[in-house]
Amino acid sequence: MNPIQNFRQLTSYLKSLNCRKRVAVVFPHDPHTEYAVRRALEEEFARFLLLADKRYIHRAQAICNEYPSYVTVYEAEDMDVAARKAVELVHNGEADILMKGIINTDNLLKAVLDKEKGLLPKGRVLTHITLAQIPTYPKFIFFSDSAVILHPTYEQFKSMIAYAVSVCHHCGLEEPRVALIHCSEKVNEKFPHTLDYAKLKVDAVNGIFGQMQLDGPMDVKTACDIHSGDIKGLSSPVVGNADVLIFPNIESGNTFYKTVSLFARADMAGILQGTICPVVVTSRSDSSISKYYSLALACITEK
Amino acid sequence: MNPIQNFRQLTSYLKSLNCRKRVAVVFPHDPHTEYAVRRALEEEFARFLLLADKRYIHRAQAICNEYPSYVTVYEAEDMDVAARKAVELVHNGEADILMKGIINTDNLLKAVLDKEKGLLPKGRVLTHITLAQIPTYPKFIFFSDSAVILHPTYEQFKSMIAYAVSVCHHCGLEEPRVALIHCSEKVNEKFPHTLDYAKLKVDAVNGIFGQMQLDGPMDVKTACDIHSGDIKGLSSPVVGNADVLIFPNIESGNTFYKTVSLFARADMAGILQGTICPVVVTSRSDSSISKYYSLALACITEK
Repeated sequence: MNPIQNFRQLTSYLKSLNCRKRVAVVFPHDPHTEYAVRRALEEEFARFLLLADKRYIHRAQAICNEYPSYVTVYEAEDMDVAARKAVELVHNGEADILMKGIINTDNLLKAVLDKEKGLLPKGRVLTHITLAQIPTYPKFIFFSDSAVILHPTYEQFKSMIAYAVSVCHHCGLEEPRVALIHCSEKVNEKFPHTLDYAKLKVDAVNGIFGQMQLDGPMDVKTACDIHSGDIKGLSSPVVGNADVLIFPNIESGNTFYKTVSLFARADMAGILQGTICPVVVTSRSDSSISKYYSLALACITEK
Repeated sequence: MNPIQNFRQLTSYLKSLNCRKRVAVVFPHDPHTEYAVRRALEEEFARFLLLADKRYIHRAQAICNEYPSYVTVYEAEDMDVAARKAVELVHNGEADILMKGIINTDNLLKAVLDKEKGLLPKGRVLTHITLAQIPTYPKFIFFSDSAVILHPTYEQFKSMIAYAVSVCHHCGLEEPRVALIHCSEKVNEKFPHTLDYAKLKVDAVNGIFGQMQLDGPMDVKTACDIHSGDIKGLSSPVVGNADVLIFPNIESGNTFYKTVSLFARADMAGILQGTICPVVVTSRSDSSISKYYSLALACITEK
């Protein structure tokens, strides 16, 4: 398969697979979530299990009436019940993906992270991966972590990289280029994450992440702009060509997220990984299209 | 005066003052620095003291021949001698601004930070402030710190804010709006800088920063996009309207710098503050125009 480089290619590819993923949506009755659900139905890459509040079940029912073969509606007493039911559907093998509608992220995560009945196997690292389509960059950028892990440890970095590489492989990038982000190129003990970066480079050479290229520390511009690397005399398969950016902390990851989405008008998608299935948890301030793209990202990850 | 909102207004305003600042340039013989020097001479807002290497003195002399009334050339044996001489010119009252040409930042800083003969008074905080003109934002954004302070303490935050507010006042912003950046709106002891933010808000209310508005923690999008604030139910003079962004650490400040300059095609200017005069220390990968704008920022700061 050719590498997928933008959201149009991503959704076309999903449609071409002719195999709809089954998505359990908790409280789908807000316009943004409804838009994402309807559009995925139109594009024929998903079917839905809608867990709806009693008061708004008519809205879920309306979607079901439009696409009766691909939508099932369940009534739930409250959001916690709906979240637990959705998690159960995943465990029973009836759903491939979990998606947040208009419920608080905390309520959803309570069910997802429940030690006995949740979706995160013991010892697995929960992380958030974002995919950005930036008009001024010729391909997708995947990055982590802008939402969940505050200050990654070495083990968490390993998981973040492994998940990102796996998503890239699913998107047809045979040898994804991963940049470990910092404010300079120097490994410096004042910044403990740069010491982790040095170890991760050895891990990459030893093949623990599979087929990929890894380099760093380097700044965002060095990672994504060949010209900057040239001026600094830096050259590697990653410099200027990154597919994946791994950020040293949530403040820098979040800054990248908000800056490209606001000032560079990027389209964004994001999912949780580490769980036994991808979980779509876009926030209230994300747009309808962002929820739809997040759903597409979850579907390709589940391929 | 009207608020200055872009670089064209900034350089026009400097020209209109009809009062050239005196700029000492250490090793000006690279094309980027020469461009900045020549353009500031054309625009008539600076005069120059060029401290040149013997081998390249003909290049400095060529500029002097074009603008004999506004350029003086000094020969220096090596870059350290040139840097010390430039610092001395500031101390003697012969120069208002120091500018780095093609010498290593470390060599320049050695002279600038020299405890006896340098430019940083004891007890003053050295910081870097950047000014960005982002095509997708209607006015300038000032931010700190992307280059010098790694993880600001409460005292360093206070200095960063005070310097930024002072530059804004020089640019005609009577009541600059300062956002304290974080990945969420919550004060949380897991992030000690958010505890500092809470104290800084009290300081601002008590008037220690003069006429300004301060709010935070908030993310970059909440600070610069009214719509995001609306969705989150947040409202303050700062939300959606920030003039200044204060970042919690160098990784996030640097990420913002590199991301707006690369992906949002922003024009950037940067100077060191805390020293007895502004110091222009653009890096090798900055463009000619960025050096010119940095010079303009230094001149308005020295007003």
